[in-house]
Amino acid sequence: MTPAVVLLSGGLDSTTTLAVARDRGFDVHALTLDYGQRHRHELDAALRVARHYGVADHRIFALDLRQFGGSALTSNVAVPKGRALTEMNQAIPVTYVPGRNTIFLSIALAWAEVLGSVDLFTGVNALDYSGYPDCRPEYVAAFEQLANLATKAGVSGRHLTVHAPLIALGKAEIVQLGAQLAAPFHLTSSCYDPDIQGRACGRCDTCILRLKGFKDAGLVDPIAYLDEEAS
Amino acid sequence: MTPAVVLLSGGLDSTTTLAVARDRGFDVHALTLDYGQRHRHELDAALRVARHYGVADHRIFALDLRQFGGSALTSNVAVPKGRALTEMNQAIPVTYVPGRNTIFLSIALAWAEVLGSVDLFTGVNALDYSGYPDCRPEYVAAFEQLANLATKAGVSGRHLTVHAPLIALGKAEIVQLGAQLAAPFHLTSSCYDPDIQGRACGRCDTCILRLKGFKDAGLVDPIAYLDEEAS
Repeated sequence: MTPAVVLLSGGLDSTTTLAVARDRGFDVHALTLDYGQRHRHELDAALRVARHYGVADHRIFALDLRQFGGSALTSNVAVPKGRALTEMNQAIPVTYVPGRNTIFLSIALAWAEVLGSVDLFTGVNALDYSGYPDCRPEYVAAFEQLANLATKAGVSGRHLTVHAPLIALGKAEIVQLGAQLAAPFHLTSSCYDPDIQGRACGRCDTCILRLKGFKDAGLVDPIAYLDEEAS
Repeated sequence: MTPAVVLLSGGLDSTTTLAVARDRGFDVHALTLDYGQRHRHELDAALRVARHYGVADHRIFALDLRQFGGSALTSNVAVPKGRALTEMNQAIPVTYVPGRNTIFLSIALAWAEVLGSVDLFTGVNALDYSGYPDCRPEYVAAFEQLANLATKAGVSGRHLTVHAPLIALGKAEIVQLGAQLAAPFHLTSSCYDPDIQGRACGRCDTCILRLKGFKDAGLVDPIAYLDEEAS
């Protein structure tokens, strides 16, 4: 089996991405980044999802982005609640973490190089939520180009591919794809601001997008929400 | 003053690069990566150099690349000694750390974005030692392109520049440039395998290149070497 490094946050998108990698026959090496995110329940979710799939290897790599700050996810800035979709798309949100995807993909690249793998998977997607600059197709293409210049594999003529199977999908399509592949949605965690027991708030941007995705897909989100109205 | 993030390992190249950034009028924010390198004396050297310059800020950012291994600098593979220059250029050496420069530049990018800086400095250079794929001009250009797609600054039309002032210089030219800018060479550490007191071995690839650089520049390397013959 061909090894692939799959970035796994423990959320809906990365879990569906892992399901796609498995469906394509890759031997999954899951990589989770513990970057000091306030929504630490997603680390537990990543462990559950990796265990569910019995992946070849799962690493939780620590690096503390709190020391730079600059995001509601790594500092004491409040996570916005109850925003309309139109409002989310107006500007880069405070939940944007500077450099995050570039750092994550770089670390995935390092591991892939050690493993002799030329396949990276990331769950980035741009359609529903265009506020993050590092979730666009041109960004993924630029990283793939860089990866081929940066590595032994690229230099020796093996092409390194950054797979972003969700890049052109809306949230409802992601839910449909995941459901079709029997992705364990009940084990995932997406909320930026869950309570101490890991229940999703139902009101932050990512909860609103997730709930709308399930609704539009005609499915029920199996995870627990604090705000009963939301679920 | 315009802020810039300067990658500072504490070696000859990064110290000269910091000197260039200062000479060009930038307000230096130095970034040192503690990635589990066996030659930990370079972290002390970075502190000494940053202190010498009285930089605006200096961060030592920890992330442990030992968990991936794959390099003589982060595992128990022996550092090669006494190799000829021709031998060094034949293949990617065991001291190559997979993904290292991509990870370092990504973290520098994250900090730059938080600081509102659009200038990164790296000491990579390719002429004397062509074995590392991520030290080539096309690699630096690809990272700059990625950085402009990845960030708020790039999206909003501010151009982000990756300065690599040593990229086309040989080691003797780097020594000359540093000397001209009064770079504190006596505070630097380049050796991959120093003794417990931080004295350079004089026989690893980086020592050989450094010593040859000083010799070709007609200057004396002010640091201590274990092998008296070498210095």
